[in-house]
Amino acid sequence: MPSRSDTPAYDLLAGTFTRLHHLDHLQAIAYWDQAAMMPAGGAEARAGALAEVATLMHQLRTDPSLKDALARAGDEPLDEQQRANLREIGREWRAANALPESLVQRSQLARSRCEHAWRRQRPANDWAGFLANFREVVAVARDEAALLSQSAGLRPYDALMDRYEPGMRCEQLDRLFADLRQWLPALVQRVQQRQRSEPVIPPQGPFPVEAQRALCLQVMQRLGFDFNAGRLDVSTHPFAGGVPEDVRLTTRYDPAEFVSSLLGAIHETGHGRYEQNLPRDWLGQPVSQARSMAIHESQSLSFEMQLARHPGFVAQLAPMIRAAFGDQPAFADDNLLTLLTRVQPGPIRVDADELTYAAHVVLRYDIERRLIEREVEPEDVPALWDAAMAELLGLDTRGNYRDGPLQDVHWPEALFGYFPCYTLGAMYAAQWFAALRRDQPDLDQRIAAGDLAPVFDWLRRNIWHSASRWPTDELTLRASGEPLNPAHYRAHLESRYLG
Amino acid sequence: MPSRSDTPAYDLLAGTFTRLHHLDHLQAIAYWDQAAMMPAGGAEARAGALAEVATLMHQLRTDPSLKDALARAGDEPLDEQQRANLREIGREWRAANALPESLVQRSQLARSRCEHAWRRQRPANDWAGFLANFREVVAVARDEAALLSQSAGLRPYDALMDRYEPGMRCEQLDRLFADLRQWLPALVQRVQQRQRSEPVIPPQGPFPVEAQRALCLQVMQRLGFDFNAGRLDVSTHPFAGGVPEDVRLTTRYDPAEFVSSLLGAIHETGHGRYEQNLPRDWLGQPVSQARSMAIHESQSLSFEMQLARHPGFVAQLAPMIRAAFGDQPAFADDNLLTLLTRVQPGPIRVDADELTYAAHVVLRYDIERRLIEREVEPEDVPALWDAAMAELLGLDTRGNYRDGPLQDVHWPEALFGYFPCYTLGAMYAAQWFAALRRDQPDLDQRIAAGDLAPVFDWLRRNIWHSASRWPTDELTLRASGEPLNPAHYRAHLESRYLG
Repeated sequence: MPSRSDTPAYDLLAGTFTRLHHLDHLQAIAYWDQAAMMPAGGAEARAGALAEVATLMHQLRTDPSLKDALARAGDEPLDEQQRANLREIGREWRAANALPESLVQRSQLARSRCEHAWRRQRPANDWAGFLANFREVVAVARDEAALLSQSAGLRPYDALMDRYEPGMRCEQLDRLFADLRQWLPALVQRVQQRQRSEPVIPPQGPFPVEAQRALCLQVMQRLGFDFNAGRLDVSTHPFAGGVPEDVRLTTRYDPAEFVSSLLGAIHETGHGRYEQNLPRDWLGQPVSQARSMAIHESQSLSFEMQLARHPGFVAQLAPMIRAAFGDQPAFADDNLLTLLTRVQPGPIRVDADELTYAAHVVLRYDIERRLIEREVEPEDVPALWDAAMAELLGLDTRGNYRDGPLQDVHWPEALFGYFPCYTLGAMYAAQWFAALRRDQPDLDQRIAAGDLAPVFDWLRRNIWHSASRWPTDELTLRASGEPLNPAHYRAHLESRYLG
Repeated sequence: MPSRSDTPAYDLLAGTFTRLHHLDHLQAIAYWDQAAMMPAGGAEARAGALAEVATLMHQLRTDPSLKDALARAGDEPLDEQQRANLREIGREWRAANALPESLVQRSQLARSRCEHAWRRQRPANDWAGFLANFREVVAVARDEAALLSQSAGLRPYDALMDRYEPGMRCEQLDRLFADLRQWLPALVQRVQQRQRSEPVIPPQGPFPVEAQRALCLQVMQRLGFDFNAGRLDVSTHPFAGGVPEDVRLTTRYDPAEFVSSLLGAIHETGHGRYEQNLPRDWLGQPVSQARSMAIHESQSLSFEMQLARHPGFVAQLAPMIRAAFGDQPAFADDNLLTLLTRVQPGPIRVDADELTYAAHVVLRYDIERRLIEREVEPEDVPALWDAAMAELLGLDTRGNYRDGPLQDVHWPEALFGYFPCYTLGAMYAAQWFAALRRDQPDLDQRIAAGDLAPVFDWLRRNIWHSASRWPTDELTLRASGEPLNPAHYRAHLESRYLG
């Protein structure tokens, strides 16, 4: 057996990340199970088990030998892919080594407890009960932000956001969102005014859950999801979990309407195909992981927004919907398209139309950035929420915590810094489709003919197979010929909703 | 923070076993998921993840500090429960420290691969495909047996069996099974002869899977299973998995008949209630774990054999069956009882009647003991199987691997030494019910009146809450007033089938 110093430092690092990949597998399945399968009585034991694996992963990432190995690996002869992997390993190493084990464990426990209780508290509209757990979640997140901020030289919120969207900063985000705030409300108003003269026939329910499920599975199949390497189940909040080799998607069913289960499944299928198509020969290494959460959301929104609201794709969906629930006037192609592109401010982010969605994100970003940077406290959230909802979408949300700050899993799970990725993802998705149309001028006819191969081929080549080989800016430049350019997003919305 | 030497050695040991409990949780959920949920494409990644956690658990159990702590803890002031815990910790430590990490990892990988492929190979009757993986499973098990044998001074098969049934030896087992072989075939013949003159009306299917599932859930509820701390799902081979705080049971449904899904669920509910009723204040420590696998099976068989074939309990089942599938002549109380006590040699162990079940176990014990002790090779199994099936049950099983040596999950999972526990469990179950009738002379009337509390109270007090506080012999003595006495088993069978 070679002594430690005989083993190339790079190999030591790669070996550690293969082990982390295995632990991440167990963690991912346990998380999925917790959300989709676990009975309530299992919560306490699950929290303990998840804290244990988080501790183990933290110990692996903070093993003292890694520091030296990282320093030595930089001088070893590595190919380009290995260099990229080393860059990503270094990034993960720095983030992990900024946090002591005790804090990691405290964070894990606080999130498990809060998330589990939230599953009952949300339907019960129990903000006070939620607050009791959420205070600790915020306290831990602030501590984490402070330590990460010191280590990375970033402001606290940037330090948290960097975990999901490496390289993105509040400064750039504030510019992007300020611009958006300038044109979005007027656009929403113009579109609503225009749509008032377009009649829409509402679908008549009920829509049996089994038929909804069968429809979701059929559409996922059409969208190329590999059921030999994944499943669709049910959870309170739809998500994409599991591991690249075994992707676990969830949606939720309401017999009174079928659009949100279907769009939820389509959204998660975008995440799922990204994961299922990451480069297999590097699986387990950071370089083969998804680039960032905004890029991830750019995949889900390419599916849910760019594709699922595309007139050509809606014409494919319509016969499947008619077969699932029986024919009715609402299921005519034109009416379905009108239905799917209806703009109507509402309280729920995941049910929001393509236009008002961004307002939900801006609202959450504003609140969570101020929470983390200690400008406001957890108990201030409902008032801030109500004020922003009134201002941005003209809605009165007072007292409705269930469809207000309790609606998302992100806060109980302490995913502070994640929300901006949705709107960044929508911007990237618009940019990908602009590039796609440039590369493939007959794209819209192809989609209308039911041929989605050009879309999947482009995403596979430019996004899925690239994984984390390049930083986000470089990935974007290589894929689309320019850095993130929000003009494509605005142009897409104006063309679809006013064109 | 106290230095290591300030911490009592017992606390160091207990802390390690709490961590093991957490890892066991992740492992148990991943196993359950693999059998009940995982798509085929996830197998390779799952095998890697399970090997990783097995390695980690092995590292914890073999940490050099434990040896010294075990020696020191014996001299510390401990109460009786702690002493019992220390005894069980020592047992686990010795077993783990006999095996090198590389072998543990090799074993885990061999079993995961074999078990996963078996799920396709069994329905395909593919013995040759199975053999390719099974050779490595047997090779690893022999290596394990050899090392455990050296360490414990036991013969190789005894060393493996000790993992499931501490204290049981081939010597005692050979005596018990030789006795059984003497009277069982004659009893089977007498009962078959007698039953030839008792007509039975076969139930008319189909029995929709959803109705079967609802019936299983209803019966499990009646049997006291806590659905707040457990679930029922589907797998190729029914099993009880998960953790005491979250018990995962499985059964399987065949629309052509409902008895095997129902009895499968009842059997696993016996395991489940044992787990759910282990003492909560010591959870995570070896002293609070189930005593042994024969004692575990004595619970499943108390439910499946002693209770589910009891005339008083069958009278409770009958109206539930009629409600589930509609009334038909076969569902009259008397006919159902006749059906459930019908003796008919058949190839499948889990579908065997109460009488011929033991023949299946004797057959498997004979083969696997000789496999482990290198008297026969994996490729010899089908011929040995066919010969024993012909001799013991008069059945021709040639060429039918699917319902032959491929029928059980035990061999792909390398659970060598487990099979004897089923028949030992049946013997213990008969002994428990003999003791119960002595303590509670109106037991049969109580069961007939639908009052199962005396059964559950007795089991809770004597078995469930005792966990691993005493060695099996002492547990048996305290519960029933005598050591394992196979006369109760024979008396029970003769009374039920000839009485």
